[in-house]
Amino acid sequence: MALAKKHGVAPGAHPGFPDLLGFGRRNMQTSLEEIKDYIAYQVGALHAFAAMEGLSLQHVKPHGALYNMAVKNTAIWDASAEALSRIDPRLILVVLAGRNREELTRIGARHGIRVAFEFFGDRAYNPDGSLVSRKEPGSVIHDQDLAASRILKLVKEGTVTAIDGTEIELTADTICVHGDNPTAVALTKKIRETLVAEGVEITPLGSFL
Amino acid sequence: MALAKKHGVAPGAHPGFPDLLGFGRRNMQTSLEEIKDYIAYQVGALHAFAAMEGLSLQHVKPHGALYNMAVKNTAIWDASAEALSRIDPRLILVVLAGRNREELTRIGARHGIRVAFEFFGDRAYNPDGSLVSRKEPGSVIHDQDLAASRILKLVKEGTVTAIDGTEIELTADTICVHGDNPTAVALTKKIRETLVAEGVEITPLGSFL
Amino acid sequence: MALAKKHGVAPGAHPGFPDLLGFGRRNMQTSLEEIKDYIAYQVGALHAFAAMEGLSLQHVKPHGALYNMAVKNTAIWDASAEALSRIDPRLILVVLAGRNREELTRIGARHGIRVAFEFFGDRAYNPDGSLVSRKEPGSVIHDQDLAASRILKLVKEGTVTAIDGTEIELTADTICVHGDNPTAVALTKKIRETLVAEGVEITPLGSFL
Amino acid sequence: MALAKKHGVAPGAHPGFPDLLGFGRRNMQTSLEEIKDYIAYQVGALHAFAAMEGLSLQHVKPHGALYNMAVKNTAIWDASAEALSRIDPRLILVVLAGRNREELTRIGARHGIRVAFEFFGDRAYNPDGSLVSRKEPGSVIHDQDLAASRILKLVKEGTVTAIDGTEIELTADTICVHGDNPTAVALTKKIRETLVAEGVEITPLGSFL
Repeated sequence: MALAKKHGVAPGAHPGFPDLLGFGRRNMQTSLEEIKDYIAYQVGALHAFAAMEGLSLQHVKPHGALYNMAVKNTAIWDASAEALSRIDPRLILVVLAGRNREELTRIGARHGIRVAFEFFGDRAYNPDGSLVSRKEPGSVIHDQDLAASRILKLVKEGTVTAIDGTEIELTADTICVHGDNPTAVALTKKIRETLVAEGVEITPLGSFL
Repeated sequence: MALAKKHGVAPGAHPGFPDLLGFGRRNMQTSLEEIKDYIAYQVGALHAFAAMEGLSLQHVKPHGALYNMAVKNTAIWDASAEALSRIDPRLILVVLAGRNREELTRIGARHGIRVAFEFFGDRAYNPDGSLVSRKEPGSVIHDQDLAASRILKLVKEGTVTAIDGTEIELTADTICVHGDNPTAVALTKKIRETLVAEGVEITPLGSFL
Repeated sequence: MALAKKHGVAPGAHPGFPDLLGFGRRNMQTSLEEIKDYIAYQVGALHAFAAMEGLSLQHVKPHGALYNMAVKNTAIWDASAEALSRIDPRLILVVLAGRNREELTRIGARHGIRVAFEFFGDRAYNPDGSLVSRKEPGSVIHDQDLAASRILKLVKEGTVTAIDGTEIELTADTICVHGDNPTAVALTKKIRETLVAEGVEITPLGSFL
Repeated sequence: MALAKKHGVAPGAHPGFPDLLGFGRRNMQTSLEEIKDYIAYQVGALHAFAAMEGLSLQHVKPHGALYNMAVKNTAIWDASAEALSRIDPRLILVVLAGRNREELTRIGARHGIRVAFEFFGDRAYNPDGSLVSRKEPGSVIHDQDLAASRILKLVKEGTVTAIDGTEIELTADTICVHGDNPTAVALTKKIRETLVAEGVEITPLGSFL
């Protein structure tokens, strides 16, 4: 606990499909009841591991295919929020920031769950606010300076430049940097330095949502 | 929740070794740290499933080989109590009633965990208060009337007749009836009827410990 | 081995998706390479268990969602046949009997694999030879006499009456009776008696394909 | 296959306990029947994966705790040889080279299974031919030159210097280098170079046993 406070961080759970061989990255034809069960199982287990270390989970973000399916099917966000409301209503649900911010905020409110909207600093956006598919050229941004400046622009101006050059409005609470990327630490430092240099304060989600 | 209260029951977790093929019934050479992790994992997951239904876990009883190893190695009871104290100190640890009641009570107290001592109504006891091995003749009591009368004697007089005829003192808080026995429901009814007929009140552990 | 010969039966493998919680009954977004790997894994393991008992596997039939996906996507049948050709080319691939018999036979021939076409005696058929979805009324036939007479008609005349009354031509080598149905044994006896009474000889696939 | 022949190598299976969390390195209280089943399961699965690539398995060596338990309990070697004789009698069983060479050879012969005796070049030996426990100082040899020279001495003279300086006789067919050691490739090259320089021919087990 002390360690987490010292570093200004907070842990969360990343539940996904029970697909070990596929690392949860393959769509599975599951019911909403099954999805709620998987969230309960994994969040509950990690909750206890965190408690063993004196920590509390702050947020929950669906993983892999479950996240991608939720982006396309709001009922999965709703089921996720419902599950969190029963497991521990202090948990924050992390969702993709996009045009449906109001709808997802309402879903959270209905279940008494705070919702955090996340931005992908290393991904290109379509004019409608969705992510450009990884199958398209230019979908992933490899230039760390560009990634950091996009995030700064998002924070300062609430806009992001879409892949076709149009400016779109977007509001986000948290930035995702994939931890399994070898350059993740360098990118995170770059983002933090850029934001801090411009006077942006960075804190765990739980301290402002 | 309402349903559990209505029926005067309370749920608990039964964590064991991660040995699906052996149903947790085979000894595994594990460290105390590993045992604490398995308890955290399984209790945490079941805690969340219970919360989904509006229930709280009341107690935790190690399963199969983990239980049997704990009976022979007090350090495992200690590790279990320590794990519960971190996961949720309201949880009750269920242990085998025997001669080491004071020692186990002290272990619970050190970790701030209530300890419930259980009696096996369908098992014969050695003069030293340990269970007669299932490999020995007469180790399992199949006569339901005999089982119920032994439990009544335990509750009323605090004694049990060992396999060699000696009377041994034993204090227990809870009776185990194995749920995977086809006669479990009939035996449970028989025990309840026998105890209630003699004026014994039966309640969940959490209401008196 | 002797036992299998005595009873005129032969074992086969029923590989499916690595989805234990869903019993392999949920569609998974898998590649053909992954499907071949799952078939290799499961057929290989069962092959060894059969060998331990002196038996040889005779056939392979994809299970659950994998089977259903293959019915809609011939590339999965092709991948299955390719996998069998490498694991053991004596294995017979069991597929759904339907209008694409020639295409599936060619796929088997290309990989040097015999293909057995199966009929579902307890399921209604569409006029195009596909199975009526379980979601539709009348999709499952519960009347054992009706099921047996449909099978007899199929064997004798090569036709089945579709759900709309039209007669469709169908050729099948094997009849599927689901083993997890409590009436499976009775239905199997009924089918066998009906066929034998009409002079039909019943043998393992491997003896005539 | 061509690739394997080109490089003078042959694949084998390394079956162990079904203990994923413990990587098969923890003793489990299993029956000989269960051990045979685990060998069948894992060897069968890997056999099929090898067949998919046009390869045949050459040998089987129990893994981790299963191997260590076999070293102390010859009945496990016997059960392993029996399992291989049923799965595929061409498979070679790899065992620890030691004083019981004759006994293990007889076990193999009884089941029609070739037995290969292995030497651990990076481990110290007790005067009785057993491995010095990893808990003892000096149990692991880190000096690659020393390891290679010990292997050369074993091959040329059939002796190894025990940890107390006594010379013990030992005959081995194969050298184990643990693949999860970062220096494994360097050590393997060193061993090969040392042996080849002294005129020793190195071939897969299957070509001389």
